[in-house]
Amino acid sequence: MNKQPLFDVSEYQARLAKTKESMYRQGVEVLLVTDPANINYLSGYDGWSFYVHQGLLILMDQAEPIWFGRMQDSNGAKLTTWLNDQNIRGYQDHYVQSNLRHPMDFVADLLKEFGADKRSLGVELDNYYFSGQCLESLTENLPLASIMNANLLVNWVRLIKSPAEIGYMKMAAKIVEKVMAKAAEVIDAGVREGDAAGEVVKAQLCGTPEFTGDYASIMPIMPSGIRTSTAHLSWVDRKYETGDLVLLELAGNKHRYHAPLSRTLIVGKAPTALEEVAKGVIGGLEAVLDFIKPGVTGEEVEGCWRNAISGTKVVKESRMGYAFGLNYPPDWGEHTVSLRPGDKNVLEPGATIHVMPGVWLDEFGFECSEPIVVTETGCECLVNYPRELIRK
Amino acid sequence: MNKQPLFDVSEYQARLAKTKESMYRQGVEVLLVTDPANINYLSGYDGWSFYVHQGLLILMDQAEPIWFGRMQDSNGAKLTTWLNDQNIRGYQDHYVQSNLRHPMDFVADLLKEFGADKRSLGVELDNYYFSGQCLESLTENLPLASIMNANLLVNWVRLIKSPAEIGYMKMAAKIVEKVMAKAAEVIDAGVREGDAAGEVVKAQLCGTPEFTGDYASIMPIMPSGIRTSTAHLSWVDRKYETGDLVLLELAGNKHRYHAPLSRTLIVGKAPTALEEVAKGVIGGLEAVLDFIKPGVTGEEVEGCWRNAISGTKVVKESRMGYAFGLNYPPDWGEHTVSLRPGDKNVLEPGATIHVMPGVWLDEFGFECSEPIVVTETGCECLVNYPRELIRK
Repeated sequence: MNKQPLFDVSEYQARLAKTKESMYRQGVEVLLVTDPANINYLSGYDGWSFYVHQGLLILMDQAEPIWFGRMQDSNGAKLTTWLNDQNIRGYQDHYVQSNLRHPMDFVADLLKEFGADKRSLGVELDNYYFSGQCLESLTENLPLASIMNANLLVNWVRLIKSPAEIGYMKMAAKIVEKVMAKAAEVIDAGVREGDAAGEVVKAQLCGTPEFTGDYASIMPIMPSGIRTSTAHLSWVDRKYETGDLVLLELAGNKHRYHAPLSRTLIVGKAPTALEEVAKGVIGGLEAVLDFIKPGVTGEEVEGCWRNAISGTKVVKESRMGYAFGLNYPPDWGEHTVSLRPGDKNVLEPGATIHVMPGVWLDEFGFECSEPIVVTETGCECLVNYPRELIRK
Repeated sequence: MNKQPLFDVSEYQARLAKTKESMYRQGVEVLLVTDPANINYLSGYDGWSFYVHQGLLILMDQAEPIWFGRMQDSNGAKLTTWLNDQNIRGYQDHYVQSNLRHPMDFVADLLKEFGADKRSLGVELDNYYFSGQCLESLTENLPLASIMNANLLVNWVRLIKSPAEIGYMKMAAKIVEKVMAKAAEVIDAGVREGDAAGEVVKAQLCGTPEFTGDYASIMPIMPSGIRTSTAHLSWVDRKYETGDLVLLELAGNKHRYHAPLSRTLIVGKAPTALEEVAKGVIGGLEAVLDFIKPGVTGEEVEGCWRNAISGTKVVKESRMGYAFGLNYPPDWGEHTVSLRPGDKNVLEPGATIHVMPGVWLDEFGFECSEPIVVTETGCECLVNYPRELIRK
């Protein structure tokens, strides 16, 4: 079949080499990769098949990852990965959602075939796509293997983006500028929230005249009214009314790479309390954007934010940013760097961070964020969109 | 706060009672529910917060479930569930994606608070949202509890839908009729695949003049050309060309209840091989729709399909249908009944099944499906859409 991977094979091989170096340092001889973003990162595989068990096996002595998944998805692996066909291993349909056998039984057999069933086996222990039953099946089927927690091993390799990856993220950023502008255009009193959401998702996929977009890993978060008092609600079946506050946490996506962006919209006149919170949050955000440069830690960035908002009306307990990039549902965050107290990770050029100072008070919320890439001397905003309360 | 649950409290209480009966039969004294669909089913909770650990604790001696999740999502739980505020327990942000502490440590503390840390604890062992690390954390923190596999316990309670649930699914069915018609209208030679996908998702959310839609748990599956040889690919950044075959696996959604529907579209003249496969699949589908009635098993339905396609050009190894309904990403299937050999589950009135005879050959694929509800005497198709190859 005609292979269609997105990056040069040399880029995949460099990622694999870095992964093996990290495996060696952690004493992992075989790595079982089940996070769909990590599968994509190392092999190119792309498909909505992560609702069944699938993954990669990375063996120190094999030049390529071994892909495993459902038989009917094997052709998808042949089309989208850089792997040789003999490294694409489909399992029969009787493994799917069965209480008689589990796909990890198949994986254990694969490891035996490669003579790797007595080695140290790293697993992504807290990933959505590595269930408790995966752990139990492997433990039972591989009594001589030493199963280790290699959670986030590949995510940490993903932290620093290549120029090609930054290129896709800048395409996603162009898309999210159009998405946010569309939301600002269509939301108004008398408009159904679902109709506005429909225009938003259409803008995500239609992209720009030069390129179309891909689905974001999180559907539009766009609560209104009292529903803005919390972080993760979507639209409901009602019409916007004058006085409604609307949170907009949206994203563009190109080739699974995100550019997330948050803004807040008010239909009608803004209450004074909202104006004050908006001013405090935007001021704090801009202080942080000035502060970020190579060498600072996640907690130092959060400290800069905390200083900037002291004396304002802003109250925030949760983290104010996180690493992001390539991903699949249910999250676009990378689960590595978090901008919060205790985070000692040092930012380096090529890291991409969603600086996301959202606040959710009991009566209303406010969000204004920027996705950035750390540069040699500071940071660059990927998106160009006014940092202000959107007024309709 | 003003509660906004979707069903009468009595309906939630009936679901909880059935769940407790099933717990009793299985010897489960405490059930930890982490599947977002099961959380919604029992509590009403709805939000895109399942990317962090959250769930319900069902205790035999408590009248309501205990909701736990991230503090910033607590207001969302207060708004969307029928639970009393004291049963909504938010954890601090330092539990989120931390390598120092895990949200299941918080859950273990909750169980101690309720004096339930020495009981039998059922967990959804193979759910996406119950990771290997959840299992390890609970095992370490609750040495006196007996941890049991209660995977799919609530999913089986969900199998038979109430009239109110069927009502939402019929609304979703009205939406998917419009979604499929929009796909058939916009896909044509020279159109960018991403633009067509944008119109499809817009149609999903804009719904009908009477009601708007919600996001489906799977983004549009709509591969073209050689990409139809496999089951789960989406659009790419190219224009459709004359001769392209396009698979369309789409859904409508209302209040998280789905109506999935598959059709196949050809741009230009259909090759004879495709015409033959289409005829075979549609004939097999219609035989199955005539056959389904209360009392038949999943494997008997599949046997009817296998008989109907014998002698045609259709080859199919994978299951030809599954239970569906309420769900969140990454799947709209319920992981209970599968129409395949060995499935001994007996269909009963109120069960909702996606009869999905998709075939993916090495050169091309073909799909034509129907979502149905089992009635007292047979089955009812939820969707009204012509069963034929769509020709452009």
